[in-house]
Amino acid sequence: MIITLTTDFGLSDPFVGVMKGVMLGIAANAQLVDVTHDIPSYDTIEATFIVESSYRYFPAGTVHLIVVDPGVGSDRRPLAGSVNGHIFVAPDNGVLSFVLQAVSGAQPRVYHIKNENLFRKPVSRTFHGRDIFAPVAAYLARGAAIESVGPQITDFITLPFPTPRFEGNRLLGTVLRIDKFGNVMTNLRLTDLGPRFRIRVAGDQITRLRRSYSEARPGEVFAIEGSAGFIELAMNKSSAVERLRVERGVEIELETESVNL
Amino acid sequence: MIITLTTDFGLSDPFVGVMKGVMLGIAANAQLVDVTHDIPSYDTIEATFIVESSYRYFPAGTVHLIVVDPGVGSDRRPLAGSVNGHIFVAPDNGVLSFVLQAVSGAQPRVYHIKNENLFRKPVSRTFHGRDIFAPVAAYLARGAAIESVGPQITDFITLPFPTPRFEGNRLLGTVLRIDKFGNVMTNLRLTDLGPRFRIRVAGDQITRLRRSYSEARPGEVFAIEGSAGFIELAMNKSSAVERLRVERGVEIELETESVNL
Amino acid sequence: MIITLTTDFGLSDPFVGVMKGVMLGIAANAQLVDVTHDIPSYDTIEATFIVESSYRYFPAGTVHLIVVDPGVGSDRRPLAGSVNGHIFVAPDNGVLSFVLQAVSGAQPRVYHIKNENLFRKPVSRTFHGRDIFAPVAAYLARGAAIESVGPQITDFITLPFPTPRFEGNRLLGTVLRIDKFGNVMTNLRLTDLGPRFRIRVAGDQITRLRRSYSEARPGEVFAIEGSAGFIELAMNKSSAVERLRVERGVEIELETESVNL
Repeated sequence: MIITLTTDFGLSDPFVGVMKGVMLGIAANAQLVDVTHDIPSYDTIEATFIVESSYRYFPAGTVHLIVVDPGVGSDRRPLAGSVNGHIFVAPDNGVLSFVLQAVSGAQPRVYHIKNENLFRKPVSRTFHGRDIFAPVAAYLARGAAIESVGPQITDFITLPFPTPRFEGNRLLGTVLRIDKFGNVMTNLRLTDLGPRFRIRVAGDQITRLRRSYSEARPGEVFAIEGSAGFIELAMNKSSAVERLRVERGVEIELETESVNL
Repeated sequence: MIITLTTDFGLSDPFVGVMKGVMLGIAANAQLVDVTHDIPSYDTIEATFIVESSYRYFPAGTVHLIVVDPGVGSDRRPLAGSVNGHIFVAPDNGVLSFVLQAVSGAQPRVYHIKNENLFRKPVSRTFHGRDIFAPVAAYLARGAAIESVGPQITDFITLPFPTPRFEGNRLLGTVLRIDKFGNVMTNLRLTDLGPRFRIRVAGDQITRLRRSYSEARPGEVFAIEGSAGFIELAMNKSSAVERLRVERGVEIELETESVNL
Repeated sequence: MIITLTTDFGLSDPFVGVMKGVMLGIAANAQLVDVTHDIPSYDTIEATFIVESSYRYFPAGTVHLIVVDPGVGSDRRPLAGSVNGHIFVAPDNGVLSFVLQAVSGAQPRVYHIKNENLFRKPVSRTFHGRDIFAPVAAYLARGAAIESVGPQITDFITLPFPTPRFEGNRLLGTVLRIDKFGNVMTNLRLTDLGPRFRIRVAGDQITRLRRSYSEARPGEVFAIEGSAGFIELAMNKSSAVERLRVERGVEIELETESVNL
C-alpha cells in the first residue's frame, strides 16, 4: 500500500516527518512517497495541478494525501475522494478539483470526513495534516472502506481549470507553471497548433515545434509537447523562462495556419 | 522497524544517501523516514528542538538518528539513549538534551557507544554519521539490546531549555524558531497568557488570541497555540516574521491581566 | 531490493514522484532511496562524481538509477551496467564513467537498453526517466537478468576523471566539488602530500594537515583527508569556500618536501 504526500510544508520543519510518524503508527507497512513539499504556501492551484499530473503514474489503490490547507481550523471540510481506482485525502478547498474534473470514465465519489474515530486526539486547530488527514489516509491505505469516513457529498469546491478560449481567430492560452529546468508549461495541446503556428508571449514569437529538446538549435525557443501532454515553451539545455520572463497566468496568443501568418 | 533521520547535511551531497545505504546493509527492512536535513550547519539547539517536537508522533520502538556533529573526530562521545520507549542515537553535544529534559515518567537511560563491533571499518575522522551512528542505529533497529553499545552514563551534555522567567510582573520569554510559513514560535504556553494579555516583541504589541488562523482579520498579528503546544505569533495566510522581523533568541515580554493593561 | 535515485530534477516538480510511482507499479516492494536530486541541471560530471562516491555504501545487488539526461529524445543510448555486484541504469552520456573507470577487480559489463517490452508506453521524447529508465530499473530490481535489456557494448561514453599531473616539481590538482559545509574537495590524495607540503590555491597557502576538523585552530584553513578519500580544504565549524572563493575546476598547486619549502 502506497501513500503519496503533496504539501506546502517544505522540508525544514518537522511537519512532514510528524505526519509520516502518525501514518506509520497506523499502517506500519505503508510505502510513503513524497511527490513534493515545495508547493508555494497556500497555493491550491499549484497543488491541484501537481496532483492531477502525477497521480496516474502510481498503481491503482494508491492513497494520495494532499495538505495545502490555508483554511485549517475553520469550517472547511476534510474530504476523501475515489477516482479511477485512486484515493485522495485533502481539504475541501479545490486541491482535488483538477483531478475530479479531468476524469473520464467512472464518476468520482467524494466523502466528507466526519468519523472522529479515525482522528488523532486531541485534534488541534492548526495542524489537521497531523490530526485528521494523515490518520485517515493511513486507515484508508490499511483497507478501511472510504464510505466509513463520512457521508458522500457532491458540492465540493472546484477551481476552474484554465482552458484556452478563442478570441476572433486567435486562441488565448495561459502559462500553467514553470518547471525546474525553466520550461514554460502552457494549457495548449499539440492538436491546437496544427502544421503552422505562431505563439506570441511576452513580446516574443515562437513558430517552431520540436519533438525533442536536442533537435533545437542553440539559443532557440521552441514549442514541444511536454511529458504531461501540454505544449511547453523550451530551450535546449537552457532556461526558456529566463528568456521569456513569464510566470503562471501570463497570457499566450496562438495563431494557426488558417490565419495569415 | 522505523529509523528517522535528522541532520544538518542538506540534500545536495551524498551524505544522507550514504548513511541510508549503510543502514540498509544491516537492517534491510528498515523504514527510513527523513525528519529534516535542513538543520543549519552545527546548530545543536535547532536539532534538539526539532527532535523533541517530532519524536513522540512515531510509534514506540522507533530509532531516531540525529547527526549534527561539529565535534566529529574529537573525543566527544557517541551516545545511544532510551526514552519513553523510543531510542536515540546521536553525538554527546546536546542534541538529545531537550528530549532527555522533557521526559515525564520513566527515567531516560543513556549509553556511551564504545562497542567497535557495531562500527563500519575503517572509522573515518570526519564522517561518524556513516561509520558509527548509522550502523549503530541499524543494529538497534534490528533488535540489538541498547546495553550492547557500551556503558551507561549520566553525565551527558545538556543544553538549557530556554524557559520563560519573571522580571517584576512581566514574564520574559524568547523566540524558539520560525517555521516555513513565517510563524514565530515562542517558549510561552497558553496557560501563561490568561484571559487578557499584552505581548511586546520587537516594537510590536500583540493582544489577541486566536484559536485558528482563519479566525483572524487580514493583516492582524495574533497569538495562537501552535501544534507543538507553544504560543506562536502568526498571521492568516501571511508571514508574521516578515512583519515582526525577529529571529531565534529575540526576547518577548508578556504582561497579563493582573498587571495594569 | 533497493533502488537509489540520482537526478537533476529538483524536488519542486512531480518528476521524481512520477518515476517512483512507475517503479512501484512494477516492483511493489522496492526500497527507494534518494541520493540527491540537486545535481545542477545537465551536469553529468557532478552526477558521475556523486554516484561513484556513494554507490559502494549500499549492499550488493542495489540498482542505481541516474537520470541527468540533457540528450533525452536524441539518439543517445540508454544503458544498464553491472559493476562490482551493483547495477546502474542511466543515459550514455558519461554519468556512469567514474564508476566504470574506478573499478578494480571484475570487468564492468555494460548493455544498450533496447528491449521495448521493458518500457512504459507510449515512450515520450522528453521524459525517458519515466518511460525507459525507471521501468528498466524496476524490472532489474525485481530480478530480470541484465542481459535481457539489450546487447552488450564496450564503446560507452566516458568523461576523463581529472587526475593530478606533474608540472616540473609541482603537482597540479583541481577542485572536484564543494560540499554543503563549504569544504573544498580536491583530487589530491593523502599520499600526494608527504610529511611537509604547501598547497597554493586562489592566492592562499595551506601547509597544515589535520586529522579531524576539531583539531584546527579557529580561522585556520587546513588540509584533511575527507570521507571520500580525497584531500579537502576545510575550516573548523566554518566554510572554507567562503574564504578561498573557489569553484569546481579551479587549479590547485602542490609542492612537497622534496621541493624547497
